[in-house]
Amino acid sequence: MQRIVVLAGGIGGARFLRGLKAAAPEAEITVIGNTGDDIHLFGLKVCPDLDTVMYTLGGGIHEEQGWGRAGESFAVKEELAAYGVGPEWFGLGDRDFATHIVRTQMLGAGYPLSAVTEALCARWRPGVRLLPMSDDRVETHVLIDDPEGGGARKAVHFQEYWVRMRAAVPAHAIVPVGAEQAKPAPGVLEAVAAADVVLFPPSNPVVSVGTILGVPGVREAVANAAAPVVGLSPIVGGAPVRGMADKVLAAVGVESTAAAVARHYGAGLLDGWLVDSVDSEAVAEVETAGIRCRAVPLMMTDVEATAEMARQALALAEEVRG
Amino acid sequence: MQRIVVLAGGIGGARFLRGLKAAAPEAEITVIGNTGDDIHLFGLKVCPDLDTVMYTLGGGIHEEQGWGRAGESFAVKEELAAYGVGPEWFGLGDRDFATHIVRTQMLGAGYPLSAVTEALCARWRPGVRLLPMSDDRVETHVLIDDPEGGGARKAVHFQEYWVRMRAAVPAHAIVPVGAEQAKPAPGVLEAVAAADVVLFPPSNPVVSVGTILGVPGVREAVANAAAPVVGLSPIVGGAPVRGMADKVLAAVGVESTAAAVARHYGAGLLDGWLVDSVDSEAVAEVETAGIRCRAVPLMMTDVEATAEMARQALALAEEVRG
Repeated sequence: MQRIVVLAGGIGGARFLRGLKAAAPEAEITVIGNTGDDIHLFGLKVCPDLDTVMYTLGGGIHEEQGWGRAGESFAVKEELAAYGVGPEWFGLGDRDFATHIVRTQMLGAGYPLSAVTEALCARWRPGVRLLPMSDDRVETHVLIDDPEGGGARKAVHFQEYWVRMRAAVPAHAIVPVGAEQAKPAPGVLEAVAAADVVLFPPSNPVVSVGTILGVPGVREAVANAAAPVVGLSPIVGGAPVRGMADKVLAAVGVESTAAAVARHYGAGLLDGWLVDSVDSEAVAEVETAGIRCRAVPLMMTDVEATAEMARQALALAEEVRG
Repeated sequence: MQRIVVLAGGIGGARFLRGLKAAAPEAEITVIGNTGDDIHLFGLKVCPDLDTVMYTLGGGIHEEQGWGRAGESFAVKEELAAYGVGPEWFGLGDRDFATHIVRTQMLGAGYPLSAVTEALCARWRPGVRLLPMSDDRVETHVLIDDPEGGGARKAVHFQEYWVRMRAAVPAHAIVPVGAEQAKPAPGVLEAVAAADVVLFPPSNPVVSVGTILGVPGVREAVANAAAPVVGLSPIVGGAPVRGMADKVLAAVGVESTAAAVARHYGAGLLDGWLVDSVDSEAVAEVETAGIRCRAVPLMMTDVEATAEMARQALALAEEVRG
């Protein structure tokens, strides 16, 4: 059985995984999920990326929105607002709240996040093994100009930057607070070492895949993996397919182009890279950097289109395996 | 301004308070609320009696049910059940959940329950000062025959006995776990000492008023109060007006009669006692015990009937004041 390891962020990662499952129904898929965007809201532990993967693959996602639960109501959120308790900019629905209540209760009882995630997945049966990148708290912060002025800078939680501010101000740096002290969750390094293929879906290269790689030991494990490592560009035609990845790429000094992202990961990590057909002129540049590259359609318009992307990624992996 | 202190449980206490506010709109009313029935559910701190008072006086109560919020939905509870997380026997609605989330978050941030209650009341504006009996954890447990058999006994949380078992098995003892170490919440003893009148509404004499009196210092403060102390019988015609007070009265060896409850409180505590018109034969017995007694209608059928009960209680207080 083919063992595939995927380093996934939220919406893009989850949708890619749905295509991958369709493309490789027999494969044993392990997802290493980003937890750098986790946030405590109302005293509850919220793990947006893990939940997006779990809900998407488990059939509970709000399809159009890409995150949160289908058929949501918002009684709890409205009541919290009536109490004057915020933040109001983070859209937690009633169904979603239940997930965070269960998670918070289990964490409070002493279970690590990996065990909690497994328990939640016992209900959702996502058809993959979903591991948080770490059981330790890592929180991505974004350094921005202090809105109070005076030339000072201020760090805000990634969700505040992304959801509240909609990335509308420049990000000067991305700081994964706690990353240096974090350990990979149980099973993460083992899964990478045992993988037949490692995939980077078209997730955010900085705050999703980059954060996972930033957990000490993970980047090394991926770089040293016997398996081919193949990524799919989240940048198409010089702009992110969705989200605001360009804003955080700028913060780490990377151009928003398919080739620049490949070089950012680098040949030490990546064996293969898929760019969109519109970016075919990037192929030569990526290959010059020592990364096998192909141009194929990379728009996840539906499950079948996404499955075809996954097939292309797996085919490129076989090609570089040689 | 007349200062009235009321020791209140849940539904009966809350409805009485609504009548008292109508009867004495100018009075400064301090409610000392029972917290012995507080329970942790799903990692959240739930204070049923405090919330019933707050919702009832603040206009948010489910009128027919007597507890919980009007217009409730149950998305969170259904989701928790889908996760296999219980208990399912405690009916928390989505709106209600928000209250417990705010409370738990504030307690987690270090605020005492009294400060949290004040913050929640800032929204509900119940028109009374609502104080928990204590900021310390007191949990009423009920000793029952172990359902596993073998003649053993088992302590269950009061809510499990009351809500889940519907008090259908004999209660051998009522144990307010933690009461001995509890201190009255800030303001409780001061309010009793400064009161012009102290009232016991027709709340449960054992697990509501009794639990409040069991907080070290409270019984003494009430007994030594300069103010008259007047109670209203929760037993009418030999049975509780609502709830299952007879079950817990039996556990403390008290008959379910209006006179027996008066003697249970005792002349050391009570100056006056109202029994229902149907229990007029109890008046002489109560007065023999040294407690001034009157028989008046005690059914809280609507706010005006309840207000009249409150007027009678205040009149009896004036009478015993002499």
